[in-house]
Amino acid sequence: MRTIAWNNFGPSVQMIDQRLLPEKLEILSLHTYPQIVAAIQTMAIRGAPAIGAAGAFGIALAAANSKAGSASKLLDELDSAADALCAARPTAVNLAWAVKRTLQAGRKAQGNDVDAVRAALLREALQLAEEDVAVNKRMGAFGAALLPDRCTVIHHCNTGALATVDYGTALGVIRAAHESGKKVHVLVDETRPRLQGSRLTAWELQRLGIPYDIISDSAAGHFLSRGEVDAVLVGADRVAANGDVANKIGTYMLALAADASQIPFYCVVPTSTIDLQLSTGAQIPIEERSPDEVLNLQRDGRQLAPSGSTARNPAFDITPAALISRFITEAGVLAPPFPAALQRAHEKANQS
Amino acid sequence: MRTIAWNNFGPSVQMIDQRLLPEKLEILSLHTYPQIVAAIQTMAIRGAPAIGAAGAFGIALAAANSKAGSASKLLDELDSAADALCAARPTAVNLAWAVKRTLQAGRKAQGNDVDAVRAALLREALQLAEEDVAVNKRMGAFGAALLPDRCTVIHHCNTGALATVDYGTALGVIRAAHESGKKVHVLVDETRPRLQGSRLTAWELQRLGIPYDIISDSAAGHFLSRGEVDAVLVGADRVAANGDVANKIGTYMLALAADASQIPFYCVVPTSTIDLQLSTGAQIPIEERSPDEVLNLQRDGRQLAPSGSTARNPAFDITPAALISRFITEAGVLAPPFPAALQRAHEKANQS
Repeated sequence: MRTIAWNNFGPSVQMIDQRLLPEKLEILSLHTYPQIVAAIQTMAIRGAPAIGAAGAFGIALAAANSKAGSASKLLDELDSAADALCAARPTAVNLAWAVKRTLQAGRKAQGNDVDAVRAALLREALQLAEEDVAVNKRMGAFGAALLPDRCTVIHHCNTGALATVDYGTALGVIRAAHESGKKVHVLVDETRPRLQGSRLTAWELQRLGIPYDIISDSAAGHFLSRGEVDAVLVGADRVAANGDVANKIGTYMLALAADASQIPFYCVVPTSTIDLQLSTGAQIPIEERSPDEVLNLQRDGRQLAPSGSTARNPAFDITPAALISRFITEAGVLAPPFPAALQRAHEKANQS
Repeated sequence: MRTIAWNNFGPSVQMIDQRLLPEKLEILSLHTYPQIVAAIQTMAIRGAPAIGAAGAFGIALAAANSKAGSASKLLDELDSAADALCAARPTAVNLAWAVKRTLQAGRKAQGNDVDAVRAALLREALQLAEEDVAVNKRMGAFGAALLPDRCTVIHHCNTGALATVDYGTALGVIRAAHESGKKVHVLVDETRPRLQGSRLTAWELQRLGIPYDIISDSAAGHFLSRGEVDAVLVGADRVAANGDVANKIGTYMLALAADASQIPFYCVVPTSTIDLQLSTGAQIPIEERSPDEVLNLQRDGRQLAPSGSTARNPAFDITPAALISRFITEAGVLAPPFPAALQRAHEKANQS
């Protein structure tokens, strides 16, 4: 089962509704690109690579539904679909990257008739989704080699199959290590406010048979300081050219705690998450989401705080490059100095 | 209204049931010391100074209920009550401190008849509770002077009136600053897993008219790194002789983040929280509570994680002395080096 897939009958985009897990495994069938935009905004689908794939399929869906009779008219129409998709969430660069890449494939086919352009757009989206799985497996193999044969790792948020098309990034490394016979125990940060750790990562680990304990996000430092942890593994939503990382809120404090105990902190990212246009993390836009996510429990809306309370809810934070031990990419494991290493990895990935 | 108080009619100990806030404000009436033990264990009452007072009143209640006909028989009986009360929770030293102090007052009165001993025990417990309020107001005045006229502070867990007999420790400082006319805005760490921040601290701040926003614990680093915070204020459950602090889980990661941004980190503690018997924080026992607190939402038992999940749930962590800017005690504000300063503060408080 994939987190997101194209269905020719409709056509439609099918995706697991991640808001309902772990209680219910339900598949959404989305027939228009505004439905994709809404699914991204409401986090029915989330995770940088997964929303990248959603963006690509969103373009293919907009093209399939368009009544445009010419290639140029179709591509003009797709510009507004692209804008809406890219604006759905601001922090993860994969979304804009995937939308742009898909559109470019359409533009390359522009000399042909409109249906050939539609086909080129869909082919690119499908290709991009396939590549995501292959890239994750490559990162998994690179990362698994860094972990001891028996180890305890801390994992933040969800970076598994659900955060990607399949297999996962940081959780893909854990999975690859497990599949290679290493004994990995995972301390799962529950990841407030939306509980991607206790809801989604725990669900994936349970299905994979990988042992885990859920912890409060704020307990990670305790376990690190006691020498109970061998490595910390996270994904990322955007990496700036200098190696600063935007990732799920809490990543920064986790990195500080790993650094204080001199435990390796690995950031597992496809090169599509690297944004060489931004020189530092200070330039990465940080989404602030609804206070309701903090004040009320997700899904059933159970109120946690007194009525009338307000909240601040930044969805991401910036971890300075200096706190990151290694980047694990599909182009290899990157050691500092990161600016040159990220540049080279980006070039290598785009050549191949 | 006090968090905990003695009621001569019964006799009984009355306390706010903190498990029910913010939805319901209910008063428990406890008639036996085992009921006090249970209230401490289940966290109907919590906060180091508050459970200290509960321990003292527990001894007075055990004495009131005892059928012992002689002072020596009564004091023998009280030893087992003292053991049970002290064992209710291991980390906060105030509990053992208060039980011991109350018992000592009884022993001093041992030459008199048994009712005089009972009276001495109750008098000491009442005195201890009164002192707690006075001590908190003194710390409030010392601490308020350290805060800018307009400021944003981060506060962890609950250290308010509810964590003490009245007024609070770290929250007492915030309250004193507010009462002196300073404009204090509080970022309230929600404090997983039991949500003492979003349930209790928010409730207190709302009643006091002090503006606040609730944040996920893991978001504190974001606000600190962006220069939005002027100070961090926490209480403590035990301070070792070298200045290492045991406090609610998450304090350590918060202190690391404050240190990384060079924001003052204030630990507000009555001298009764200082344990000069322990040379470092490594010797402080850390309570590990039920995994259910992490896996299920408190009170209504709403399940958060997949069935069959396990969790680790340390209730406290150790913050090294090097991460603490100042201790604010009733004997004054302490600057490093802490070993000598804590020793002097302890002596000063015990002389007066």
